[in-house]
Amino acid sequence: MRVEVISSVNEARADRFTHRTAIVIDVLRATSTIVAALQAGSSGIYTVETVLDARALQRPADLLAGERFCRKIPGFDLGNSPDEFTPEMVQDRRIILTTTNGTRGLHKAVRADHVLAGSLLNLSACTQAALDLRRDIVLLCSGSHDEFALEDGLCAGAFVAKLQAGSPDGLEMDDFAAAMLGFYRNSTGQLYETLASGATGRRLLKLGMARDIKRCSQLDSSDIVARMQGGMLTRG
Amino acid sequence: MRVEVISSVNEARADRFTHRTAIVIDVLRATSTIVAALQAGSSGIYTVETVLDARALQRPADLLAGERFCRKIPGFDLGNSPDEFTPEMVQDRRIILTTTNGTRGLHKAVRADHVLAGSLLNLSACTQAALDLRRDIVLLCSGSHDEFALEDGLCAGAFVAKLQAGSPDGLEMDDFAAAMLGFYRNSTGQLYETLASGATGRRLLKLGMARDIKRCSQLDSSDIVARMQGGMLTRG
Repeated sequence: MRVEVISSVNEARADRFTHRTAIVIDVLRATSTIVAALQAGSSGIYTVETVLDARALQRPADLLAGERFCRKIPGFDLGNSPDEFTPEMVQDRRIILTTTNGTRGLHKAVRADHVLAGSLLNLSACTQAALDLRRDIVLLCSGSHDEFALEDGLCAGAFVAKLQAGSPDGLEMDDFAAAMLGFYRNSTGQLYETLASGATGRRLLKLGMARDIKRCSQLDSSDIVARMQGGMLTRG
Repeated sequence: MRVEVISSVNEARADRFTHRTAIVIDVLRATSTIVAALQAGSSGIYTVETVLDARALQRPADLLAGERFCRKIPGFDLGNSPDEFTPEMVQDRRIILTTTNGTRGLHKAVRADHVLAGSLLNLSACTQAALDLRRDIVLLCSGSHDEFALEDGLCAGAFVAKLQAGSPDGLEMDDFAAAMLGFYRNSTGQLYETLASGATGRRLLKLGMARDIKRCSQLDSSDIVARMQGGMLTRG
């Protein structure tokens, strides 16, 4: 089995996904929020690029969620903080989510045979699901403003470590995967601090959202596998 | 002072170099070879993209050097192995060098106020020169075949560590610089092994060029500052 890591949505050419399982990563915060929403009982999450698309897709019982520049969109039911997605709010509800980077990442990966939403929260569950699908794997770091984001690279490195541990016959990797693995190993035991030190982390701290960073750094706190099926992310 | 790291030549937009000092990195092997050539007494190195350009630029006493797919170009005086560049061969001679990736990196960086060729060999000397130039710094990983190369990322991380140690007032860095710093720290004491494990390293091993990898991993074995002036790299 082989794993490759793509550094940002900008770098994601469609042909890199063909015949692969894609794990899309947007630790702060889209894919962490998706995992939290499914954990809280949401029946599924549609991700869309624009506020107009979100409103167009909404059926009466659906919830609208999303952020622009880290803040909740005016008139929406929910922002993009995992803690907002409680069972009381989202149980058996469909959610239409629009975020800046994670959504673009999920849409870029559609050419893959399977698309999973990965985060630190569901690292082990998502890794096991990817191994069970028996395809080569491509980890897509969504990044921020078309640039590499520290937190997504860290999570990609964590996935490479976990995939390696789960591959008794060895795991081939590209150079970027090897670098992210080294970066992750150097950050062991400092996940929160590393997340908080990146550009997005510092922006969230400034906005008083340290709690989101804490929540998104809780390794393996969920056994949810978030899988794209028919355009919607559901428990896979 | 701020440092940014660009992951490959492909990612290098011209505007990222404006008002900066650029350190161009191609550890295996162009920038290591440039440092070795200047160390051995070459009067300067022109880097060009094509074999035709190299031949067009050659004056009678000049040496032609370069590789394609890791091998010496037929009819050229030298390949791209640092060990070939001995004082007997290159003392007081001008060299026209054409390589696949490093050359493109050096040409991409021309918009910078200052352009230096960096490698593990001249890490401390090059870092000190860059600090003395008092500009923000951009480290350009040349990469390989338009992709990130492990050895260049490792060297970029080493530069970030050295720049940080030499910045008593603190060093700002972008997310990619922080990730490469973590990757480098995780590889301390394993420079050769890390270089040998990447895609280019494995290719050189297959071609029987382990000696080149060894040579290129000799941290701080040279005090050469290789600086671009008038289109030529000279001792700066």
